[in-house]
Amino acid sequence: MTTSELASLVCSTNLSSIPQPAIEEAKNSLLNYMGVAIGASRHAMIDMLLDVTHEWGRNQEAQVLGRPERVDIYTASMANGMSAHIFDYDDTLLDTVLHPSAPVFPALMAYAEKHEVSGRDMLAAFVLGVEVSQRIGQVVYPSSYDKGWHMTGHVGQFGAAVSVGCLMGLSTEQMQHALGIAATQPVGLREMFGTYTKPFHPGRASANGLLAALLAQKGFTSSTQSLEALRGFLRVTSEATDFSRLTSEWGANWEIMKNSYKPFPCGIVIHPAIDAAVNLHKKGVSADNVERIEIEVNPLVLELTGKKTPRDGLEAKFSVFHCVAAGLLDGWVGLVQFEDSRVTAEDVVEMRSRVHATIDTGIAEDQVRVKAYEKCGKVHELFIEHAIGSIENPMTKEQLVQKFVGATQGILDRAHQENLIEETWNLDKAASLKNLVSICAASE
Amino acid sequence: MTTSELASLVCSTNLSSIPQPAIEEAKNSLLNYMGVAIGASRHAMIDMLLDVTHEWGRNQEAQVLGRPERVDIYTASMANGMSAHIFDYDDTLLDTVLHPSAPVFPALMAYAEKHEVSGRDMLAAFVLGVEVSQRIGQVVYPSSYDKGWHMTGHVGQFGAAVSVGCLMGLSTEQMQHALGIAATQPVGLREMFGTYTKPFHPGRASANGLLAALLAQKGFTSSTQSLEALRGFLRVTSEATDFSRLTSEWGANWEIMKNSYKPFPCGIVIHPAIDAAVNLHKKGVSADNVERIEIEVNPLVLELTGKKTPRDGLEAKFSVFHCVAAGLLDGWVGLVQFEDSRVTAEDVVEMRSRVHATIDTGIAEDQVRVKAYEKCGKVHELFIEHAIGSIENPMTKEQLVQKFVGATQGILDRAHQENLIEETWNLDKAASLKNLVSICAASE
Repeated sequence: MTTSELASLVCSTNLSSIPQPAIEEAKNSLLNYMGVAIGASRHAMIDMLLDVTHEWGRNQEAQVLGRPERVDIYTASMANGMSAHIFDYDDTLLDTVLHPSAPVFPALMAYAEKHEVSGRDMLAAFVLGVEVSQRIGQVVYPSSYDKGWHMTGHVGQFGAAVSVGCLMGLSTEQMQHALGIAATQPVGLREMFGTYTKPFHPGRASANGLLAALLAQKGFTSSTQSLEALRGFLRVTSEATDFSRLTSEWGANWEIMKNSYKPFPCGIVIHPAIDAAVNLHKKGVSADNVERIEIEVNPLVLELTGKKTPRDGLEAKFSVFHCVAAGLLDGWVGLVQFEDSRVTAEDVVEMRSRVHATIDTGIAEDQVRVKAYEKCGKVHELFIEHAIGSIENPMTKEQLVQKFVGATQGILDRAHQENLIEETWNLDKAASLKNLVSICAASE
Repeated sequence: MTTSELASLVCSTNLSSIPQPAIEEAKNSLLNYMGVAIGASRHAMIDMLLDVTHEWGRNQEAQVLGRPERVDIYTASMANGMSAHIFDYDDTLLDTVLHPSAPVFPALMAYAEKHEVSGRDMLAAFVLGVEVSQRIGQVVYPSSYDKGWHMTGHVGQFGAAVSVGCLMGLSTEQMQHALGIAATQPVGLREMFGTYTKPFHPGRASANGLLAALLAQKGFTSSTQSLEALRGFLRVTSEATDFSRLTSEWGANWEIMKNSYKPFPCGIVIHPAIDAAVNLHKKGVSADNVERIEIEVNPLVLELTGKKTPRDGLEAKFSVFHCVAAGLLDGWVGLVQFEDSRVTAEDVVEMRSRVHATIDTGIAEDQVRVKAYEKCGKVHELFIEHAIGSIENPMTKEQLVQKFVGATQGILDRAHQENLIEETWNLDKAASLKNLVSICAASE
């Protein structure tokens, strides 16, 4: 349970030994990642970042997903890591609230694109990168999260460093140094939620991890016990004392198998409430007949998403009230329901005022209890035991494709969408990422 | 004592209102910074960083000090911030152990070079940048330092962001965003001391601060209460509860006036012991006649620099035993005394074994008590009350020039050294940094 042991386990794991089910889940993760990143790629914050980096002059060696620009691999890592998290629509490892793909894929794919790595090796390296950031996350969670660290920026850089380091074939000692350089650059305060700086976190983490691997490859030194040392990462940024998870049962299972994908483009804690609202819509509960909606939620829901009167799409992601109102009115909560115009629409604002929330510590994070009171006196009661998208009620491959198509609408045309889906499902047989990446350039 | 108030104070301070004594001290800081950065500019770790960034393709818009390369301003910030700290020879604000110049000057000078800012405005912006990082440092010190954060990476990015932001003329709100983007990227675990990753910290902090200002200028958003919020920088990374120093007595004094410069290229906590060893040398104590040297030191000395048997120059910086031995034998501890060959030389290794240290909580950090026992029975006792380079016993301008000449030897020839010193003393009358920077390119 030391940095040395962890690096040794990573470096002694042959990429070809990663089992096929983990590779399949990596492909699900990839499709989900590309969909949300391409979908958000035209956001103003990506324009701003590329405006800044454009002035520095860069090689055109890696694709900015969903856009015409090609940039250097470092800038690509930042830009794609940001766009993957803009819509709060990316994947989640539920036991640590880590969004594993946004910090790992951008650095890894940029490196793999430049160095013509095979699709299967890239996917296997992703499995290893996620494994390491998630294990470190399991050690520090919940104490660092409670303190105020955003898990994805806080531990994501380790995954980026390890996955790129695996493709480079770093020695165990170099991998220790890469982990050390990554350890000294944690990113991300939860205070930034609701601002552009939140998606900046995985972008920054991805680039930090990439730089860590690139420097370690050149011989750059760092502490070789950066995780467990008295003034190392784990003790400085968390209250954790049990570090066994860093290395326990290595290879018995792969953490990527527990990855979950969001059906709705907002914080996962609101998903049970949206699931319930969508169900009420199906039952015929509508603006015309509903008087009052009461939801009982896990305490985290109001802590994270308790905004009563969101003013725009970004704030609406932190409002369980908006999400329930929109879900009930529209029968779904997709990207459209977070457009500023929908958030401030009269019917939505009015419906929000009828939604009332109370917390109940007996309700799990993927559960919700809802009562809808109709004007006629009829009461609908609903209990969602496991929201759609949870481990127990996962999205199907078909639903992932639907989500991808919805997310990339207006950026990729139908033919490009279909080609990209096809390339993704077959990526483990591809000699390089060339075809896949070329489709990720904007087509509309 | 909020981010908003701090940003407001910064933005309402006219650069031309910074008083001349502060500008003069900024020039001392600049000469010291350029000397140590140029001196270390050929180190392997700078080669490694430039090897990595070279592959990304960069504009040639900012000078890597002491080298022929010109690179983009972001890369220049990283490279120059690293070289400024490689020798552990840079300046220190003693009450927080913050090395103020290494994270601030690189970003600031790169930006000022590119945008043809006047010498005086650049120096005034430096004063403001240092003011902000030091005030934040005063809030979090000693708790974040005790926890394991390296102050210079931990708070240095704020100074870089603010100084560049001042030159840009950011609005108060933009400055709040810049502080927020900086706040979410703290760098630097003390565990990294003794490795290449330690000087990486100010380099990374400088580039992080620069990026924060550049993004804020474009309209990038962040929390506007990034410092004081419940999950903001101060509470997440320290146990501090009193934030009054963020804004108290703004403008009454400038923190740069308390800057101190190291006479010896190693951690400041060893300086009293070296001062004493140099004094013993002057008294004629030598390898031939000394039997045993006992030093009584502040507890921090052995905590930070207690390595008994350093194996190379880098480790020797963390060995008070080496420093006392070398100081006694050679009559000075400069860069030569940290070359690997001197660290492993027989006479030094032998003398080290005669040095014995004990801690005494009654001894301040800039003090030391030494007893040297000669074979003939004679005992020399010495008490250093304030080591050379301390606030009470500061280096003179002549000593700063001597240090600069020694540090840049072999990289700048005599004429270039003299020109650079001259340009520095007159920088507040220069229309741009052009002449100054052109001399910083390697001449040998």
